[in-house]
Parts: sequence; C-alpha cells; structure tokens
Amino acid sequence: MTQVALFGAGRIGQIHACNLAALPGVQLRYICDPLAPGAEALAHKLGARRVAVEEALGDPAIAAVVIASPTTTHCDLILRAAEAGKHIFCEKPVDLSVARAEACATAVVRAGVACMIGFQRRFDPTFSALHMRLRNGEIGVPEVLNITSRDPAPPPVKYLKQSGGMFRDMLIHDFDVFRWLLCDEGRDEAVWLSATGACLTNPAIAQAGDIDTTLVSIRTRSGRLCQINASRRAAYGYDQRFEVLGSKGLLLAGNLRPTEVLAMDAAGVRTDNPEAFFLERYREAYRFEMAYFFKQLQAARNGGDGSLRTSIHDGVAAQRLADAAALSFASGQPVTFAAPEGR
Amino acid sequence: MTQVALFGAGRIGQIHACNLAALPGVQLRYICDPLAPGAEALAHKLGARRVAVEEALGDPAIAAVVIASPTTTHCDLILRAAEAGKHIFCEKPVDLSVARAEACATAVVRAGVACMIGFQRRFDPTFSALHMRLRNGEIGVPEVLNITSRDPAPPPVKYLKQSGGMFRDMLIHDFDVFRWLLCDEGRDEAVWLSATGACLTNPAIAQAGDIDTTLVSIRTRSGRLCQINASRRAAYGYDQRFEVLGSKGLLLAGNLRPTEVLAMDAAGVRTDNPEAFFLERYREAYRFEMAYFFKQLQAARNGGDGSLRTSIHDGVAAQRLADAAALSFASGQPVTFAAPEGR
Amino acid sequence: MTQVALFGAGRIGQIHACNLAALPGVQLRYICDPLAPGAEALAHKLGARRVAVEEALGDPAIAAVVIASPTTTHCDLILRAAEAGKHIFCEKPVDLSVARAEACATAVVRAGVACMIGFQRRFDPTFSALHMRLRNGEIGVPEVLNITSRDPAPPPVKYLKQSGGMFRDMLIHDFDVFRWLLCDEGRDEAVWLSATGACLTNPAIAQAGDIDTTLVSIRTRSGRLCQINASRRAAYGYDQRFEVLGSKGLLLAGNLRPTEVLAMDAAGVRTDNPEAFFLERYREAYRFEMAYFFKQLQAARNGGDGSLRTSIHDGVAAQRLADAAALSFASGQPVTFAAPEGR
Amino acid sequence: MTQVALFGAGRIGQIHACNLAALPGVQLRYICDPLAPGAEALAHKLGARRVAVEEALGDPAIAAVVIASPTTTHCDLILRAAEAGKHIFCEKPVDLSVARAEACATAVVRAGVACMIGFQRRFDPTFSALHMRLRNGEIGVPEVLNITSRDPAPPPVKYLKQSGGMFRDMLIHDFDVFRWLLCDEGRDEAVWLSATGACLTNPAIAQAGDIDTTLVSIRTRSGRLCQINASRRAAYGYDQRFEVLGSKGLLLAGNLRPTEVLAMDAAGVRTDNPEAFFLERYREAYRFEMAYFFKQLQAARNGGDGSLRTSIHDGVAAQRLADAAALSFASGQPVTFAAPEGR
Repeated sequence: MTQVALFGAGRIGQIHACNLAALPGVQLRYICDPLAPGAEALAHKLGARRVAVEEALGDPAIAAVVIASPTTTHCDLILRAAEAGKHIFCEKPVDLSVARAEACATAVVRAGVACMIGFQRRFDPTFSALHMRLRNGEIGVPEVLNITSRDPAPPPVKYLKQSGGMFRDMLIHDFDVFRWLLCDEGRDEAVWLSATGACLTNPAIAQAGDIDTTLVSIRTRSGRLCQINASRRAAYGYDQRFEVLGSKGLLLAGNLRPTEVLAMDAAGVRTDNPEAFFLERYREAYRFEMAYFFKQLQAARNGGDGSLRTSIHDGVAAQRLADAAALSFASGQPVTFAAPEGR
Repeated sequence: MTQVALFGAGRIGQIHACNLAALPGVQLRYICDPLAPGAEALAHKLGARRVAVEEALGDPAIAAVVIASPTTTHCDLILRAAEAGKHIFCEKPVDLSVARAEACATAVVRAGVACMIGFQRRFDPTFSALHMRLRNGEIGVPEVLNITSRDPAPPPVKYLKQSGGMFRDMLIHDFDVFRWLLCDEGRDEAVWLSATGACLTNPAIAQAGDIDTTLVSIRTRSGRLCQINASRRAAYGYDQRFEVLGSKGLLLAGNLRPTEVLAMDAAGVRTDNPEAFFLERYREAYRFEMAYFFKQLQAARNGGDGSLRTSIHDGVAAQRLADAAALSFASGQPVTFAAPEGR
Repeated sequence: MTQVALFGAGRIGQIHACNLAALPGVQLRYICDPLAPGAEALAHKLGARRVAVEEALGDPAIAAVVIASPTTTHCDLILRAAEAGKHIFCEKPVDLSVARAEACATAVVRAGVACMIGFQRRFDPTFSALHMRLRNGEIGVPEVLNITSRDPAPPPVKYLKQSGGMFRDMLIHDFDVFRWLLCDEGRDEAVWLSATGACLTNPAIAQAGDIDTTLVSIRTRSGRLCQINASRRAAYGYDQRFEVLGSKGLLLAGNLRPTEVLAMDAAGVRTDNPEAFFLERYREAYRFEMAYFFKQLQAARNGGDGSLRTSIHDGVAAQRLADAAALSFASGQPVTFAAPEGR
Repeated sequence: MTQVALFGAGRIGQIHACNLAALPGVQLRYICDPLAPGAEALAHKLGARRVAVEEALGDPAIAAVVIASPTTTHCDLILRAAEAGKHIFCEKPVDLSVARAEACATAVVRAGVACMIGFQRRFDPTFSALHMRLRNGEIGVPEVLNITSRDPAPPPVKYLKQSGGMFRDMLIHDFDVFRWLLCDEGRDEAVWLSATGACLTNPAIAQAGDIDTTLVSIRTRSGRLCQINASRRAAYGYDQRFEVLGSKGLLLAGNLRPTEVLAMDAAGVRTDNPEAFFLERYREAYRFEMAYFFKQLQAARNGGDGSLRTSIHDGVAAQRLADAAALSFASGQPVTFAAPEGR
C-alpha cells in the first residue's frame, strides 16, 4: 500500500481524492487544507485524516504527496516534499515564476524524487490515442498543429488578477500540448513565437491588465508550425480541439459530448454541445493521470522504467513559452529563442 | 447502510459488485457463487464474504439482493428472496418461461418487496436523454420507432442452445425499448407483430434450431409502428441505435465510440468504431441502474415514490413479446394480441 | 444527333427537358403536352417545337421519346412509341396495373426497342457509389437492407386518390432499391413479404382508403432480409437513407444537405436539414440517368452493350412487389411468392 | 442579349465558357486565346468565334469581357477593356504588383465600367450561407476567424517561380475571406499582421525562394483576430474550412465531399475525403459568380443597384495584405498598417 497525503481539498483536490480512493494499492491517508470547508467531511468519507502539512510530511509512512492547493503554494510544497523525500504529483503550473519553477526542478532532481505535473490532457483517451497514432507514423512527419482552446466563460476578474494572465493561466496547457505533439520528445523545439490578442468580452478584464482572446504562432527549429487560438468565452461550451497535419494525412481530436442524441425538426439537425467545462471534459483524464503516476512509482520500485510522461521539466518548459507569449503580446514583436528551450 | 447480497460472480456479477462497492450508503456483504473461480478473490478485494445462498437470505441484516447468476436460476432465487422479504434487483430475463415469470411477479407483489429487472438500456445517458426529450414533447406524438441491434459476433453455439433463442435472449432488450418509447407508460400496447429471420453467419446455429438475423414489425393499438432489425454479427462492432419519428421531428440515439479522433489520409476520413460490446457500451448504464435501484429503495423507506423504472411487470411484458416473435417466426404468420399485453 | 420527343411538360418534364438540352449529341425536337401552361414557353426557350403526340411519333427523324406525362398515359404512350419503333425513357411507374405493365414489356420486347424506367435513385452519386462498392465485395455478402423513405409532407388527398396508394405510388422506388441492392442481378428474389401501416397524419387520407405510414419486411430465397419504413411526413424534410449490412461490414447512404455550415450556440450544435424534396435531392440523379440512357443507345448503335440499368422488367417487378405489399397490408397476412418474381 | 468575349481558354476559361453558355440572356460571342490548343474546339462547341483580342474589344456589340488568361496579362487586358468601355470580370489576382493593380482600379473608375474580381469563394453556397447568417447576427459580434486552406499537392516549381509566391498566389483568397467575414464592409480593417512559414514538402520550393506551409495572424483595429493556416500539401485532398467565433456562438464552414456514403468494417468508420481540388470544390461557386455578375450588370442597366460583391477594390486590398504577409515572413517581424488598408 502506497500511503499518500493530499494538499488542497478544493474543486480539483476533491476529484483527486476520489480517484485516489478508488486506486488499488494506494491509500489516501491525509488531507491537508487549512481552509476548505469540506476538507473534514471529505477526509471522513474517504477514511483519511485531516492534518497539518507538517504532520503529513513528517510521517515516514507517506511515500507520495498530491499537491492541489493554490498556485502560490506549489513552490513551497514541492521544495518541502522533495526535502522530505516524498514523490510528488503537482497540479499545473509549477509556479508563475520561471525562476522559482526552475528552483523546484533542481530541488526535485537533487532529492531524487519523482515529480509529475498535472497536464491532464496528455491522459485524455482521445488525446492520448491521437498521440500514439502520431508516434506510430500514421500520418508521416507532423508539420502543422492547430489548437483551439476556449473556455465557456471568463472567470471572475478577481481570479484573473492573481492568475498570471491568460498565457500563464490558460494557455499553459496548450503550450504543453504543443511540446508533446510537435517537439518529438525534445528533439525539436520552439525558435520563434508571436502572440497577439485583445479584450473582447468584458472591459474589466482589460482594466485588470489582461486579455480574453489570443492567437499564438510558433515555429520550431525544424520548421514545424503551431497555431493556437484561445478565448475565455464560447457561448456553446468548452471547446478543446486540435489537429495535426502530417506529410501523409491529418489527425484531429474533436470535442466530447454528454450524449449521442441527434434531433431533427423544422429548424434543422441538432446534436449536443461539448461537455460543459474541464471537470466534465477531462474526468477520465484526471482518473488516468493519477493511476499512471502510481503505476510509474511502482514500476520504479520494481526496478523498471518509472519515467513520467509529464515531468517537472515539462512544467518549466511550458512556463517559459507562456512567458515568451506574454512578452510577445506586450511588445507586439516576436520572441526568438537563441538557446534550446525546455531543457 | 443497506446490506446487500450478490448472487453470481461471473462477468456481469463482477460489474455489479464493483458498482455496489462504490455506492455510498450501500454495503456489499455477501457474494454467492458456487462455481465462479474469481468469486473468492472478488469478495476479498471488496471486503465482502463468500457464503451460500441460504446464509445470505437467512441474514436479517440483508435488505436487498442482486441476482446476476445464470438465467435458469433467476426464478428460484426471486421466489426465495421474495419469501425472505428481500428487495430484488434481477438481471434480465426474469425467466425464459412466461408462466414462471408471471409466478415470480405474483410472488413479488404478494411479498410486497421491490423488484427491478436489469434492462440497463433505460439508464444509458443517451437513451434516457432521448426518452426524456420525447416525453417533453420535443417531436410531438411518436409514430415510428426503428431499432438497430447488432452484436459484434455470435456467442458459442453451446450458449445459444440454452439461451431461449434469439428473440428471448437478444431481442428481449429491444422489446423493452419498444414498450418504453412507444407504449406511453402502458396507455398503448402491441396488437400485431410479425417476425422473419434467417441463419446467415454459421450453419451450426441453424442446426441448433436458432437464427442469427431477424426483422420484427410491431403495430400498436393506436397505430404506432416499430421496426426492429437485429443480427448476431456486425464486423464493425456493437451497433445499438434507434430513431423515433414524431409528428414534429425525429430523435435518434447514435452509437458511442472510444475516442473522438478523426483521421484523414489518401484512403478517406476515418473515425472510431462503436464501443466493442455491451460491457463497454453500457458501462455507465450499469452504474446508473444500480444507483437508481438503491435510491428508489431509500425513497420508499422515506415514504416517497419508490416506483421502479423497470419493474418485474416490464420483464414479463417483454418476455411475452419475445414469445410472440418466436411464434411468428416459426409459423410465418403474424401474431395478434386480443387482450392487452404487458399488464 | 439523336432527335428526341418529350411527352409531358409538368414539373418533372421540365427537368428532363433542361437536362436533354444540355446533352451533347442529343436534340430535343418536340414537346408534347396538351395541357401544361408552360409547355409552349419551354419549347421556345429550348429551341423545340410543341406538337401533338401523333406528329412526334410520326416523324421518322425521332429516335427516342421521354415519357413524363401522368401515370395513366404511360401504358398507351409506351405501346404507341414501341409500335413506332422509338426507344423509350418512361417515368415510373410503368402502370398501376401489373397486367398492363406486362403488356407494355411484351410490346417493347417484340418491337426490339430500348425501354428504360426512371428509377432515378440508381443514378444518384451516393447511391450508385454505394452499389458499386457493394458489388466490389467491400462488405462481403449483403445480408440486411434497411430503407428509410420519408416525404416532407403528404400530397393533396385528391392526388392520393388516383395515386394507386402508398405502396404503388411511393414505395415503388424502395422496392426497386431492394431489388437493386439485395437481389444480386436477379439471382436472388423475394419469397416472403409482410406489410403493416397506419394513417397518422391526416384522417382524410384514411377516408380516401390510403395510409401514410408503413413498415414492410421482405425475405429473399437465400435468406437476405429487407426492411422498409416509410412515411408521408417528416417535419425535418425529405429523408432518404439506406444501410446494407454485409458479412464484413456496413455501407450506409446518408442524406444530402444544402450547405455544410455548422452552427454552435447555447442551444447546441446545428447543421442543415436534408434537401427539401426529390427535385432537389435527386437533381444530379435526373441529370445522370438521362445522360446514361443516351449513352447506352449510342453504345447499342455502335454494336456494344446497350443494356439498361433500369429496364421495363425492373418496372414490372417493382410493381409486383407493390401489389404484394398492398395485399399484405389489406389482409394483415404475409404474401409468399411461389414462383420467381420479377422475371 | 448581352454579348461577351472571353479571354483565355485554359482550365478555368473553359469552366467560365460553359457557365456563360448556360446563362439565359447572355451570349458568348468571342473566345480569345492565342495558345490554348482547345480554344478553337471550345468556340465551335459553344457557337462562339475565336478571334484576336483587338477584334473582340473593337466590336461595339460586346458589352462585357471575362478575363481568364494568365495573371501577367490581367493588367493590360483590364486597361484595354476599360478603355473600350467594356464591363469586366477578371480572375484573381488583379496583378502581382499592388501599384499596377491600383492603376487598374483607377482606370476602371475613370471609365465608369463595372469590374468584378473572381473571388469565387464568396459565391460558394456554404460560404455565402455562413456569411449571411453572420450578417444576420446569429452569433452576435464576430471576434475570431480561423481559416484552414490546404491544396492537395504543390504545383510544379516552374509554376511557383512566376506565381508571386505562396502569399500572393494562394493566400490571396484567404485574405479576401478575412476582409469579407471580419471587416464589416470596410468599417473595420487590419492593423497588425504577422506571418511565419517553412518549406516542408519539397526542397526545390525553398530553392525557388518560396515556402509551402504558413501561418498568418491578423488583428483588426477593433481587436478582432484572424488566423490562417495554409499548406501546399494535404494527402487527403483539398481542405477548405473556416470558423467564426462570435459573442453568441460559432459558425463553421466544412468541406464538401463527393458522396454521403459511410462505411464501417473491422478497420473503423470511413467517409469520403473532401472534393479533390478547387475545380470540383467550387464548381457551384463558379456558376453562381458568373450568373451574379450579369445579374448585377442587368440591375445597373435597369437603374437598380449594380454594386458588386467583389470589386476591383477588393482585389487591390487583398493584394496589399499578401504583400504585407510576404514582407512579414521575409523580415520575421510583424507589419503594422498606419493608414486604413483596402480603400
């Protein structure tokens, strides 16, 4: 039994908690959250105890921690968990500062613990099937990636103010998808990035110094091209699609929908909108990423390959691209990467 | 905590066991299966005990039983469970004999226990959304129902020989869907039924006295029409679709597929085949039906409406239609229903 | 230049006239229609002359006639055209009476003229591509055919009264599709047919002795099964689909739609309804069938294979199936075919 | 009867010739092409005469000319036709030089003749239906436009060398679509444009100084965003899609396909690839644009509104955007537009 402590019992923490509870060979022992009103009830329901972080990290029986607390706490918790020799699953982003994120990566490497970042999209059945088919050469060499990434509605302006901005808060996932699909396990990399954007949904977002709509173009060293379009608002729901054009064809990941009912009447043919938002859309992905993390820990314990699909280095690399996009948008100029990014 | 005993630890029994284990307020206490090799391990994994049927039914703490054992045992187990005052969830069919099924219904009514039959399709998210929209009048009055029902491959001939034949074994679900969608909560009913069929996939099926491909047409008293086409083989997977034509439009329930990847290359556009078979296709339905059963038991305990969406009377009514179809096919003549069916 | 006379300048006659005008090597010389108000204008626009039938049939320069006049005139015009040695394209049906249709077939054979019946569906690009792929063995041996055939709205009751009834007027096309797709060029044939139906859209249709909704099941000698569902009303437009299940897969012919616009908003995802009715849906088919007819005449003149995809024998065979369906519906009993049908 | 002269009898000239021949009220009198081998035969088949340009322009009976000759001849022919007082339909582009294109626009205005540029996409039924629905406010205010524009295979390098490069030769259509859909009849306009690209299909294209894959991002004065991705190669056919995100929803224009056959077998679900290339994809658009041009000439003659949906000013404006994209790609820097573009 791998004993686990969970930090954070908010929306995403609760999802991880339930997924942990259903994992064979894993026991959720502690839930640490000084604030969340439901933390106590959650712990009770799942047979865990609510304790302070110190106690959890101080218990030598705890082998791994899951960090699902606010972004501002990630860095501190990663450093402390690494120091305590615990394996780490941490929600994205590592930290809004690339420098601090790099410090985390260094600490993790030095401590020799595993550290996986919660880029859950890499575990979505549709996305991972596409990735596998791409790797199997089904469409030859990948050349162009188009990512559509739209939230149903913007979050409260108060949230936006401490979010790090649209590129760091929302596009961080898309930058990771770009690296996953187009950068060939690190053999290729971004060399040119250009971003533009606007505030179109709510003037208060502009007043807070942010935008809600953006386009990003990226070129890699080998000439592969990636185009991201993202918006904080889509009246029809959560829109998460991408397409990879390769030398021999195209692979496209479409939206999921709640049901397969099709209706026809005098007004036309209608099907369901996409799943409402990320908790619904990536429900399976959250389940699979957690199972994968513990499977890899087990593999490493057994002397096998315990490498992680989304390491802390992936977290740092995505953060660098987000910084570059923010800079490009602010300056109106492209950013070029002199040295290899992401390594 | 509602204490539950499960009869049968085969393929479908294991699914029910896991779903029971995840239900809040429900405790799977006993698993009864004299044969299934994995019964002991299943019980251990889920914290249940493996006991004989007598012990389970004799324990006054047990409030409900789930019957997932072979069809030939259903009748006996229903009668005994009713006698013992246990609420009953029973896999379809009630029994291959309408007379015995009726006896079960009588016993259940007399004992005053709840008895739900596992017509899981009524709990599939796509099918139940369609049903709700139909009831809400979205397409006016329903007029024509077309059901496509195809298994990926025929079962072993040995299984077929004791299955009751294609109409009782496979179309029983479709007859229930017909009643659910077209018979207006019992206010309408079948008055004419005609079946034809053939053995096209394997001569051994014909030698066993069965068929593998069939068409059934049904007319209701009010003139609504239902058309079923079913096959024991579909090279592309498990095909489960239906369409309802109404006075104001059409509602169509399509297949589900494992991923939403679309691929295009020189050979054309490709998407995934449907889910492989019923365990995958109705995974969510199995989960929902079990949750629903215990929710209704709870509602009844609380003095609310504990009526069941798929009662034992629905089980008997579907069985009658299956008998009629078998008779029609054997005689080459339609069957007419003088008296109301299904009540 | 093949000189042609057109009989009938109504809705469908005008379509044939324009298609004839655009065919290289074909000259539309005469238009015969004693009643149609636009006949004169149509003739003028296309450089043809409006004459009486006698004059057209008496002109030795005329090699072929196109019959698009009312059904009641078909038999007489076929007999006279055959007598005059003209090749014949005739709209479906040959005649509402099988006996008269057979007399036409005999006359045509005796006269040695070509006679093609306007089952235009066989020339629709989608349907004919499906047929070709079926013949090429793409899905193995065909086993089950499902035809959905729905008009957007019923015609005037006055029309229905002289139409021959739903089976002869509307399903005649579907019976031809059944023979085309499932009967293997005449090597297989219907041996059992059962029809049911109802009047659900307008009581005046029932008062006129007709129905508006029907199901037909057919079994062939080799055990192939065909299921037709047809309705005189579909609120969402003209619905013309079919599916063929074969031993190795499925081929499905879907509806066409005016545009490929997809809209998504808070209410869901919407696409266009099918094309409005047969003139739009089969626009290309009308063009292709006419080109095919004259291509085959040319091939025959050049000593090649001038056989026709939809001969007068196909017209007679479809009529027989329509008669059988009408009889089955009236009697409530299936019809069996002792002798081979359709030959 | 409007008498017309056609310049150019190549691939696209032949299409225009056939469409002209089928237009009521229009007579194709002259075909001018000194080179095309089929020009004489084409003229004969359509009842036109093959003459030199001088003769055609010198004939006062000629009211309009259709220019479908090589790009390098457009400017000269426009100037001469304007001088001769003929109305002009000219294939895109006006000229590869913006300066010369502007000179043409000036000459046309001075001569008071109509001049329509052949941006046929604006006449495609799917695209124009989308445009109309957009204008009707169906999705609120348009905010983001994504254009996918892929040819099935690159043209010969020899062609590319004199084509003006990918932006001027291929993306010119996409720039026009951007202006049509996002610029609100000239009330909005591009203020920032960034392009990147690569040569990925054939090194000979790079040696010829061109690219085959590109991304373009455009921001308008009001903050609307447009993203174009284009490639000279798509193994699956001609890919022409776009999407408009608006404040209330999304409108998407999908590809057309030759048939609506869907096939399912053990390998998955397959549908047709898109139409092969522009001649097939825009067949209807070519027909509609020509009919529209003469309808507008007629309207103007009758004192009505004869304004053209794609004027020579649209041709000049698209050319300016193509120049800007070429400059942006060459410099690696965005281009900003100080003064209003396109007017």
